[in-house]
Amino acid sequence: MGISAEESASLYSISIFTFVLWLCIVVGHLFVKHRWMNESVAAILIGLLSGTIIMFTSQGKSSRILVFSEDLFFIYLLPPIIFNAGFQVKKKHFFRNFITISLFGAVGTMISFIIISLGAYGIFRRFDIGQLELGDYLAIGAIFSATDSVCTLQVLNQDDTPLLYSLVFGEGVVNDATSVVLFKAIQNFDLQHVDASILFQLLGNFLYLFATSTLLGIAIGLLSAFCVKWIKFGMHSTDREVAHMILMAYFSYILADLLNLSGILTVFFCGIVMSHYTWHNVTEKSRVTTKHAFATLSFIAEIFIFLYVGMDALDIEKWKYVKNSPGQSIAVSSILIVLVMIGRAASIFPLSFLSNLTRKNPLLKINFNQQVIIWWAGLMRGAVSMALSYNQFTRSGYTQLRGNALMITSTITVVLFSTMVFGMLTKLLLKFLQPFESGNEIVESLPDLPNPNGIRNPLLENGKPISVFHGFFSSSDHGIHYYWRKFDNAYMRPLFGGRGFTPFVDGPPTDQMAV
Amino acid sequence: MGISAEESASLYSISIFTFVLWLCIVVGHLFVKHRWMNESVAAILIGLLSGTIIMFTSQGKSSRILVFSEDLFFIYLLPPIIFNAGFQVKKKHFFRNFITISLFGAVGTMISFIIISLGAYGIFRRFDIGQLELGDYLAIGAIFSATDSVCTLQVLNQDDTPLLYSLVFGEGVVNDATSVVLFKAIQNFDLQHVDASILFQLLGNFLYLFATSTLLGIAIGLLSAFCVKWIKFGMHSTDREVAHMILMAYFSYILADLLNLSGILTVFFCGIVMSHYTWHNVTEKSRVTTKHAFATLSFIAEIFIFLYVGMDALDIEKWKYVKNSPGQSIAVSSILIVLVMIGRAASIFPLSFLSNLTRKNPLLKINFNQQVIIWWAGLMRGAVSMALSYNQFTRSGYTQLRGNALMITSTITVVLFSTMVFGMLTKLLLKFLQPFESGNEIVESLPDLPNPNGIRNPLLENGKPISVFHGFFSSSDHGIHYYWRKFDNAYMRPLFGGRGFTPFVDGPPTDQMAV
Repeated sequence: MGISAEESASLYSISIFTFVLWLCIVVGHLFVKHRWMNESVAAILIGLLSGTIIMFTSQGKSSRILVFSEDLFFIYLLPPIIFNAGFQVKKKHFFRNFITISLFGAVGTMISFIIISLGAYGIFRRFDIGQLELGDYLAIGAIFSATDSVCTLQVLNQDDTPLLYSLVFGEGVVNDATSVVLFKAIQNFDLQHVDASILFQLLGNFLYLFATSTLLGIAIGLLSAFCVKWIKFGMHSTDREVAHMILMAYFSYILADLLNLSGILTVFFCGIVMSHYTWHNVTEKSRVTTKHAFATLSFIAEIFIFLYVGMDALDIEKWKYVKNSPGQSIAVSSILIVLVMIGRAASIFPLSFLSNLTRKNPLLKINFNQQVIIWWAGLMRGAVSMALSYNQFTRSGYTQLRGNALMITSTITVVLFSTMVFGMLTKLLLKFLQPFESGNEIVESLPDLPNPNGIRNPLLENGKPISVFHGFFSSSDHGIHYYWRKFDNAYMRPLFGGRGFTPFVDGPPTDQMAV
Repeated sequence: MGISAEESASLYSISIFTFVLWLCIVVGHLFVKHRWMNESVAAILIGLLSGTIIMFTSQGKSSRILVFSEDLFFIYLLPPIIFNAGFQVKKKHFFRNFITISLFGAVGTMISFIIISLGAYGIFRRFDIGQLELGDYLAIGAIFSATDSVCTLQVLNQDDTPLLYSLVFGEGVVNDATSVVLFKAIQNFDLQHVDASILFQLLGNFLYLFATSTLLGIAIGLLSAFCVKWIKFGMHSTDREVAHMILMAYFSYILADLLNLSGILTVFFCGIVMSHYTWHNVTEKSRVTTKHAFATLSFIAEIFIFLYVGMDALDIEKWKYVKNSPGQSIAVSSILIVLVMIGRAASIFPLSFLSNLTRKNPLLKINFNQQVIIWWAGLMRGAVSMALSYNQFTRSGYTQLRGNALMITSTITVVLFSTMVFGMLTKLLLKFLQPFESGNEIVESLPDLPNPNGIRNPLLENGKPISVFHGFFSSSDHGIHYYWRKFDNAYMRPLFGGRGFTPFVDGPPTDQMAV
C-alpha cells in the first residue's frame, strides 16, 4: 500500500468530489425553500464555483477533478435514475396517458430533430465556423432534441400536478430513448446515399428497438418477481432480497445495451414491472428499504451529474478556440436555444391538438396553459446532450478542430443556460399559469368516471381490488384495460405475485404473498 | 453512442459479472441450509467455475472478466463492509471487551507477523525459490497476518454467540488495520539500516495511526449527527438524510486514506458513532432504509470479493512459472499455512491467558473451547492478503520474476484453501465445541451483574435510559463507564442527539429528537 503519486491524486479527487457532493445536498436543502431555486441549479453553481477554485489553486492548469466520461454517465449514473423513475412512477397516470406520452416522446422528438437539424444546416453554413459535415448537422439535431427529464422532475410535483408530471416525465423517458436511438442510427448509416428508403429503415429500426427493449425489461422484471415468489429469500434475509432486486435491475440495463437495444427503455419497464409484482412479494422491511434506497441512489446520481456538468464547463482547453471569436460563440448558442424552443413548440402544440381529439371528455383534454407548461418543462437540456455531444465532437482529436470545439462549448452554454435560466423560471411560470395548484387537476382524481360503455365498476368485480394497470389505454379503448385486468388476475398474479391496486404507502402492508 | 469494440467488451464483462453475482446470491441462499456451506465458499466456487468456462470459451487466452485491482478493492469494496460492521456491531459487547479486542488485534497480529516472517525467512532461504529480499520476507509476514473477518462473520452468529462474535469480529477490524499499517511501514522504512530504534519508531507510528484514525472517525461521525440534528433534512426528504449518511461515511474513509491514516479504523469508528447518534436523529423511514441498505451494500461487496478471488485464481499467466515445479509450490503453500496456524496459536492462547487475568468473574473468562474457536475462526485469509500480495509482488514487472510468481500463486492457494477447507469445517467445529449453542454464553446475557463497587443500577439513574456505551472498559474500570455516561448525557447528547440505550429493532421507534 505504498501510495503512489497517481493513487494519491485519485484519492484526492474522490475525497474532494465526495465532499462537494455532500455540500450540494446541504446547500440544496437550504435552497429548497426558495421557489426559484432547486438542487440541479445549486449543484451546477457549486460545480462552477469549485471548478473556479481548483483552476486558481492549480494555476490555470486544470479545472476538473474528474474527467467527464461517457462510460461513467451511461453505465453508472443513468441506470439508477431511470430505474427509480419507473419504480416510483404512478402507473395509473402513466398508462392512462400512454398514447399521448408515446406521441410526445417519439413523434415529438422526431419533429424537434428535423427542425433543429434543418435550422442548423440552413443557418450555420453561412457562418465561418469550421467544417461540419451532413452527419454533424444531423447529430446536432439529435443532441439538442434530448430533453433533461431529471431537471424537470425536480420542479414539477407528482402529487400537485399528476397529469402534467406523468406527461412530462413519461415523455422524458421516451425522448431519452428516441434521441439516443436516433443518434446511433445517424452514426451507423451511410450518409453518402440518402434516399427515402433510409427514412423507413430508420423508422423500422426505431420501432423494433422500442418493442424489443420494452419486452426485455418486462421479461427481466417478471423473472425477478418469479424468483422472489418461489425462492422466498425473505425467509432468510432482507439483504438478499434487496440485493436481488438491485442486481436484476442493473442486469436488465446492461444486457439491453450489450444487445444494442435501448437500456433506458428496458430498465424503465423493468422498474414498472418490479414495482407491480416483485415489490409486493418481498418483506415489509425490504419494501421500505428498496423504495428509499433506490430513490437515494437516483438522487445522488442526479446531483453527481449536475455537479459534473458544472465542473466540466470550466475546462480551459475547450474554451481556447472560442476566446478568439466570443461573438460567434454567443450567436451559435443563441441560435441553438431558439431552434430548441421552435422545435419543441412545433411538436407539443400540434400533438396536443391531436391528443385532445382522442379525449372525448372535455375535462380530460390538455388545455392551453398545460400545453405551455409541457412545452416549457421540456426546454432544458442536460447530461444526455452533453454525453452525445462529447461522443460526436471529440472523436477526431480532442476538440482540436475549430468547428468541433465550438459545438462542444455551445452545448455547454445551452445546457447551463437552459438549466439555470429556464429551470429557475419554471416555478414562477407554474405559479402564473396554475394559480390554483390542484384546481386544474381535479378531474384527474376521478379515476372512474361513470363509464358510458357500461362496464361494471371494477372495484367491486369479483370482490378483488382493481389492478394498477387499470386505465391502460382507457381513454381510447375500454376493452384492453378490462382484458388486461382479467389476464393479470387469472394468469400473471398467481405466477408472479403482486397485490393489485396498492398505493406506495408506508403503512404496515400485510405480508400476504399470493392473491 | 457508436459502441466501440472496447466499450462492448466492458459491457460484456459487466453484464456477465452482474449475472454471476446474482447467481451467487441465489445459490448461496439455497446452500445456506447446509451447515458446512456458506456464501463465501459458494462465491469462490462459482468464481472458479465461471473462470473455467471463460478460459475454455476464450481458448485459454483469458480466465478473468475483471482484472483484480487493488484500487477497486480498497477504494470501493472494503469501505462499505467495514462501515457496515461498525454500524451494526453490538456496541455493548464490543466496548466491554475493548481491551481484549485491542490485545488480540494489535499485539496478536504483531506476534503472528514476527513468527511468519521469521519462519518464512528461516525455511524459504533453503529452497531454490528465486531471489527474495529481507523486505519481501517482512511483507510475507504482514500479508499472512491479515485475517479474513468477512468470511468468519458469515459463520459465527451475533445472537447465538455474542462474546465470540464480538471478539473475533472486533479483532478482525483491528487486525486489518494493523496488518495494513505494518505493510505500509515496511515499504517505507529503510531496511538496510535496521536497529532497535526502528522498532520503537514502528510502534510509535502504529500508535499514532491508531489514535488519529480513531479520532478522525469519531469526529466525522459526530459532525454527521450534528448536521442531521440541526439542519433537519428529514423535514423535506428521507433521501437526503440517507444520502447524507452515505456520503459522510465514505468521505471519512477516503479522507483518512488521503491523510495516510488507516481508513479502515476511521470508517469503523465513524460507523459506531453514526449508529449511536446520527441514526437516532433521522426519521423512522431513514432508519429502516439505512440499516438494510448498508447491510445490502456490504453483502454485495463481500460476495463480489469472493467471486473476484475465485475468478482471478485461474489467471493462466500466474501459474506458468509454477507449472515447472508443482512440488515446490505445494511445499511453499503448505509451509505458509502451517506458519499461519502456529503464529495464530502463539498469539491467541497466551493473550487469552493475559486477558483472563483481568476478568475477576470466572463466568466471564474465555474458556479453552472458546480460545480454540477464536484461534480457528481467524485462520482464514482473504481479499486483504490478496491485495497486499499483489501490491508487493507485482511491482517489479508483472510476476515475471520466479520468486514473485511463486508468492502470488501461494497466496492464492492459501486463500482458497483456508477459506474453503477451514471455512467449511468451522460450523462443524462450533457444533463440536459448543454443543449447547447459547449455553456457554449465558453469562453474556447478564449485562448488569450485581456491582461490587456499589454503583446504583444505571438503568434507573435519573430515570433515563442507560447509554449504549455502558460497559466501556467495565471489566477493568467501573469509573470510566460511569463518567462516560454522565458526560454523554450532559454534553454529547444535547449537542449530537441519539437516544441512548436503544437496540436496533424494527419496531416503531418514536421520533423524539433530543433527550
